Amino acid sequence: MGYNVTQKLIKDHLVEGEMNPGSEIGLKIDQTLTQDATGTMVMLELEAMGIDRAKTEASAQYVDHNLIQEDSKNPDDHLFLESAAKRFGLYFSRPGNGVSHPVHMQRLAKPGQTLLGSDSHTCANGCMGMLAMGAGGIDVAMAIAGEPFYVKMPKVWGVKVTGEFPDWVSAKDAILEMLRRHGVKGGVNHVFEYYGPGIKNLTAMDRHVIANMGAELGATGTVFPSDDETKRYMKLQGREDDWIELKADDDAKYDVHDEIDLSELEPMIAKPSSPGNVVPVSEVEGEPIYQSYIGSSANPGFRDFAIASKIVEGKHIADGLSFDLNPTSRQMLIDLSQQGHIANFLQAGARLHQAGCNGCIGMGQAPATGRNSLRTTPRNFPGRSGTREDSVFLCSPEIAAVSALKGEITDPRKAGFDYPKVQELDKPTIDTQLLDKPLTPEESAKEELVKGPNIASIPKMDELPNDMELPVLLKVGDDISTDEILAGGARVLPFRSNLPEISKFTFEIVDDTYYDRAMKQREDGGHVIVGGTNYGQGSSREHAALAPRYMGLRVAIVKDFARIHWQNLVNFGILPLTFVNEKDYEDLEQGDVLVFKDLRNTIHKGNEVEVKVKGKDKTIKAEHALSKRQLEMMQSGGLVNWVKNRLNR
Amino acid sequence: MGYNVTQKLIKDHLVEGEMNPGSEIGLKIDQTLTQDATGTMVMLELEAMGIDRAKTEASAQYVDHNLIQEDSKNPDDHLFLESAAKRFGLYFSRPGNGVSHPVHMQRLAKPGQTLLGSDSHTCANGCMGMLAMGAGGIDVAMAIAGEPFYVKMPKVWGVKVTGEFPDWVSAKDAILEMLRRHGVKGGVNHVFEYYGPGIKNLTAMDRHVIANMGAELGATGTVFPSDDETKRYMKLQGREDDWIELKADDDAKYDVHDEIDLSELEPMIAKPSSPGNVVPVSEVEGEPIYQSYIGSSANPGFRDFAIASKIVEGKHIADGLSFDLNPTSRQMLIDLSQQGHIANFLQAGARLHQAGCNGCIGMGQAPATGRNSLRTTPRNFPGRSGTREDSVFLCSPEIAAVSALKGEITDPRKAGFDYPKVQELDKPTIDTQLLDKPLTPEESAKEELVKGPNIASIPKMDELPNDMELPVLLKVGDDISTDEILAGGARVLPFRSNLPEISKFTFEIVDDTYYDRAMKQREDGGHVIVGGTNYGQGSSREHAALAPRYMGLRVAIVKDFARIHWQNLVNFGILPLTFVNEKDYEDLEQGDVLVFKDLRNTIHKGNEVEVKVKGKDKTIKAEHALSKRQLEMMQSGGLVNWVKNRLNR
Repeated sequence: MGYNVTQKLIKDHLVEGEMNPGSEIGLKIDQTLTQDATGTMVMLELEAMGIDRAKTEASAQYVDHNLIQEDSKNPDDHLFLESAAKRFGLYFSRPGNGVSHPVHMQRLAKPGQTLLGSDSHTCANGCMGMLAMGAGGIDVAMAIAGEPFYVKMPKVWGVKVTGEFPDWVSAKDAILEMLRRHGVKGGVNHVFEYYGPGIKNLTAMDRHVIANMGAELGATGTVFPSDDETKRYMKLQGREDDWIELKADDDAKYDVHDEIDLSELEPMIAKPSSPGNVVPVSEVEGEPIYQSYIGSSANPGFRDFAIASKIVEGKHIADGLSFDLNPTSRQMLIDLSQQGHIANFLQAGARLHQAGCNGCIGMGQAPATGRNSLRTTPRNFPGRSGTREDSVFLCSPEIAAVSALKGEITDPRKAGFDYPKVQELDKPTIDTQLLDKPLTPEESAKEELVKGPNIASIPKMDELPNDMELPVLLKVGDDISTDEILAGGARVLPFRSNLPEISKFTFEIVDDTYYDRAMKQREDGGHVIVGGTNYGQGSSREHAALAPRYMGLRVAIVKDFARIHWQNLVNFGILPLTFVNEKDYEDLEQGDVLVFKDLRNTIHKGNEVEVKVKGKDKTIKAEHALSKRQLEMMQSGGLVNWVKNRLNR
Repeated sequence: MGYNVTQKLIKDHLVEGEMNPGSEIGLKIDQTLTQDATGTMVMLELEAMGIDRAKTEASAQYVDHNLIQEDSKNPDDHLFLESAAKRFGLYFSRPGNGVSHPVHMQRLAKPGQTLLGSDSHTCANGCMGMLAMGAGGIDVAMAIAGEPFYVKMPKVWGVKVTGEFPDWVSAKDAILEMLRRHGVKGGVNHVFEYYGPGIKNLTAMDRHVIANMGAELGATGTVFPSDDETKRYMKLQGREDDWIELKADDDAKYDVHDEIDLSELEPMIAKPSSPGNVVPVSEVEGEPIYQSYIGSSANPGFRDFAIASKIVEGKHIADGLSFDLNPTSRQMLIDLSQQGHIANFLQAGARLHQAGCNGCIGMGQAPATGRNSLRTTPRNFPGRSGTREDSVFLCSPEIAAVSALKGEITDPRKAGFDYPKVQELDKPTIDTQLLDKPLTPEESAKEELVKGPNIASIPKMDELPNDMELPVLLKVGDDISTDEILAGGARVLPFRSNLPEISKFTFEIVDDTYYDRAMKQREDGGHVIVGGTNYGQGSSREHAALAPRYMGLRVAIVKDFARIHWQNLVNFGILPLTFVNEKDYEDLEQGDVLVFKDLRNTIHKGNEVEVKVKGKDKTIKAEHALSKRQLEMMQSGGLVNWVKNRLNR
C-alpha cells in the first residue's frame, strides 16, 4: 500500500507507537524553532533539566515578538536568549531579522524533516515538505534535549488542488475558503495534505500562506510535497543541496477527501472575531475601515508585499486611514526597498514598521475603539489586536491594499484598474548577518547564561493529590482562546519569564475577578475550570497553562480541547477531562464544589472519572485521554517533575 | 541703535512690557505647534475655556510621540486630536508623518514670525529666522486663543560663527561644544543668536540641529538669521514666497559675546546622564556599546541619515549590536528610500522604525540593563530611554555610524576610510498627504470632539489659601528634570489625559513612596517640595506641574528653576519660591512643617516671603518672581480659573 507524504514523514521519524489514527506516537524531531515570547521559558527549562547541548540537527532561537523595548525587560531577554543560544548550541536570529516562520523557511527548512516549534504557526514550514508542528515550550525543550515528541497519530486530510488563481485572488483566499468550509476546529487531530495538478500553480510562499493558517483549522500540521517548485525556491536561497524530492506514492490514500479548484475561488474575508467566520468579501463590501495592515507570517512573501505596492503605486490611501506595513524578514525588506516597493508604500501614505510580528500579536498598531481594522494576519480573536473590544477582519494583501485606497472594504475585482503583475526576483537577497550560527561544543562550554533582573526560575509544583474537593471558580463558553486565558500584547508579554507577575493577567478579559479569587483559593487546594468546546484554541503559549497552574488550577472539565493547549495542560500537571455527556455542562455552575476521590488510581484504571457535585444529588462522568506516559507525568505533577525524577533515578 | 535678529523679532511682536532684560514682556504669537503627548490636554483646555477657533496664522497639531498603539488609548487619542484639529481650525499631521520640528520646518515655518510649541524642542525652528519657543501646554492654548505669550525679556547671547567643519565633524559637534562650555543651565533667560561669516557654511538643517539643542542649554530660544540659505531651503520645499530676509543690523549689539570656529571643532560626545556632560570623543574611545541609534529632532535632516548610510554602505555592524534607525519625517524617508540609503542601512544590519519620536522619548528601543547606548538624540537624562539605570551617550551621526561598525565608541576620524560626501537633493520630495489643512470656519463649526474612554476633563482646582501649614514631603537635589518628576515613556504617556492615573507615576524614579504620601496628605491641605538648582529642566510637559498639583503640591522652594517648568508651576497655581540664602536649603529636611501666614497679601506686597519652620527656631526667607498678571493667576488657583473668571466677568 502506498503512503502519502504525511505518512512517509511520520514513518521515517516514528520511534514509538503505531500509525493508527488516534493512538499516541513518538516522533524523532530533527529541527526546532523557538521565539522570544515562549523561548525564555524553554531556555529556563533546558537549564532546569540540566541539558548541555541541543541534540537536534538544527535548532533556532528567534527574536520577533518583543521588539518594542519600552524598558529593559525586552532587551534583557534578548541578551538572555543570545547567551542561551550560545550555551546550548542554537542558531540565534537577532531582533530585526524577521519573523521566525519565513526566516526559517529561507534559511533552515529541509524537505523530509520534522520541525517542532513553540509557536502555533510553526506548521507554516509544512510548505517545504516537512512535518512542522506547533507545541508547548516544554515539548520543544524536550525535543531540543533529544526526546521524541508525543502526539496523537493524525488522520490525513487530502486536499486535491486543481486550477489556478484568477486575477485578484491569491493563496490567502484558498486557506480562508478552507476555514469557511471547516471552521476553527475542523482540522483537530488531522494533518492537511495538499496534492494534485494545481499544486504547481502555488509558489513555495503561496504554500507557506496556506500551511501557516492550518493552525486556524486546529490541525496538527499542513504538508505539501517537496517538488520542483520547492527546489526552485531553495536554489534561489542558495540551498539547493538541502533539497530532496518528497511526493506521495501513486497509490497513496487519504483518511478524508477534499478538493479545491483555485480557478473558482473568489476574494474571501474573515469577519470579527474568529478566523473561521469567513464569507466572500462581496458580502461585507462598503464597511468603513480605519486601518489596513499588511504583513505577518500569514502573508510573509515578497509577492505579498509587492502586489500591494503595485496596487497603491502612484495613488494615495483614503483620508484618515492608518496604513500599517509590517515587513516579515530583513532579507526581504532589503529586496522590497531595492525594488522601489518601500518608496511606493511610503508615497501612498504607509507607516513602515520594523521586521517582526508586531501588531499581529498585539505588539503595537492596535486599532481605535470601535473602528474596523483590515489585516492580512492569521488571527482576529477578541482583544488580540491589543484593543479590548476590537473589530478585526482578515484578508489577502489584494483586499487590504484596494480597501486602503477606498477607505472601505472593497472587492478588489472592483478596483477600477487591471490586476498588477508581480515578477518573483531572479536573485533575492541572501543575508545571514543577523542569524548567528551555533557555536562549537568547545565554544559553547565556555558560555554562561546572562539573566536580567526580570528572569525568574520556574517554581516547584506538587504532585497530583489523590482526593480533592475543589470549587468551580470559572465557567466559560465555547472557543475560548489562549488569548482570552492569558493575553499576548505589550502589557503582558514582557512578564513571560516572571510567573507571579504574568499570572495577574490570567482570564482578565473574561472575568477580572478570577485572579483574586484563585489566589485566595490557592492555599485551600486549588480549583476547577469548566468550559465548552474547542477550549484553548489559538496561540501555543504554555503560560496559558502555567499561570493557571501556579494559581491553583488542578482540573479543567470541558466539552473538548484544542490540541496544543490540551498538551500544555498535561505538561504542567493540570488534569484535562471532557464531559461524557455534554449536557452535564449545562448543570454545572460557578461555585459548585466538585469531589474527586481516589483520583490517582482512578485515572490509571481507565479513562472514566466520576465527579460528585457536593451538596447536590448529582454525579458527573468525565473522561481523560492520557497515555501511559502522560499518566505518569500527571501523577508526578507535570513534565518538569517527571524529567527531574527520571534523571535522579 | 541697531537691533540684532532676536530684538527685531521681539520688537515686531511686542504687545506688552518693555524690552529690558529680565522684565516680563507679552508677545503676539503667529504660529503654534502641539504634539500628541501634550496636545490632548491643550485641546481639552481650549474646550474648557470655550474657545471657538484658532486666532493664530497657523497652528499645527502633530502626532509623533505615542505611535506604538499597544491598546486603544493611543489611537483613540489620535482620533480625538484629529477631531480637535477640525473643530478648532488647526493643521493635523497624522501618525507616521514624522516629528513635529522637521515637519514644521519643511511645511510651515516662516522667517520673521513667532512660534510657540508645547514641546521643549520647539526652539528648533529658530533655524528659520523665527522666534520659536517651547512652553507649557496651557500657554500654547492661550496663544491659540489669541492671547499674548508672557516671558521674561531675554538677554541675547551672540555667537559669532567662523570657519567651516573639517571632515567627520558636523552641526551636532557645534552644539555639543556649546554645551561643554556652558552646561545645561548656562542659557537660562537667554536667546542664543548665531551670526558671522561662518553662518553661510551651515545649511538650514545644520542650523536646525544647533537650534534644537538650545533647549539643552536652558535657553529661551535660538535664533538664526533668514538669509540666502534659508531662501534656498524654502525654495526646495516649494515655499519661496514665504521667505523674507531677516538679518541683524550692522551696528547690532549682543548682551553676551561668544565665538565658535567650526574649523577648530573636533567630534564631541555627551556622557551619561546629562547633555551637559560633554567631552571630546577621544576621551571615551574604546568604551563598548550595545546600541547605536540614529534619528530624532536633534539630527533630523536628509544629510544626517545619508552620511550614516554612506559610512555603513557595503559594511556590517559589529556582532551583537542593535543599530536602530528612527526616521524623522515621511517626506524625507521617501527620499532616503529612493536614493538607496534605506537599503544600505538594512544591508548593514539596521532595524528600521517608523517616522516619529520613538526611543528619543522612551517610546521603544530601550537599551538592556547596564549596557551603553550611543544616540544622536538631544537628551540622556536618567531613565529617559525607558531603562531605569541607563547609560546613554549623545553624539553626531558620524560617531554613531562609525562606532556601530566597530562595536565601541570610536573617534570617526579613525574610521579607516575617507569621509563620504553627501549631496543635498536638488528636488526633495514634497508630500503633504498626511498633513491635513485646517477646515474653513463653516466646516469647523459642524465638527464635534471625538473623546475615547481614556480622555477626562481637567479637575477643578481651589484658590491659593491665605494661611497654610504644610510638610516638606520631598527634598531633592540639583538638576531634577521633568523626566524625573513625571517620566515619559510608554508606561506613562498613554495616561496624559487621565490625571488620576498619570499622577501615580509622579517622582517614581526619585522616591516611589511620594505618591502614597502625597495622596494621604492631600486632604490636610497639601505639601511642599524643596529642591536645588535648575529644578524642572528638560521636557516642557505640563503634567510635571499638573500631577503634583492634583496631589496637593502648593509651594516649591528651590535654589532656582528651569524656565518652562517655572511657568508651568505658575500656570497651575503652585507657588514657585527661591531661597534668598541658598544655604537655607541645607537646613530644611523632609518632614519639616512650613508655616505660611497671610500669603495672598504678602506676595502682592513684595517679592519676599517669610516661612517659619514649625517647632524649630528657624525662619527662612524666600522670594517669588511673579508679575502682576501672574499674581492674579496664582491667587485664583491657576490659569484655567483665571481665564474662566475673566470670561464670566
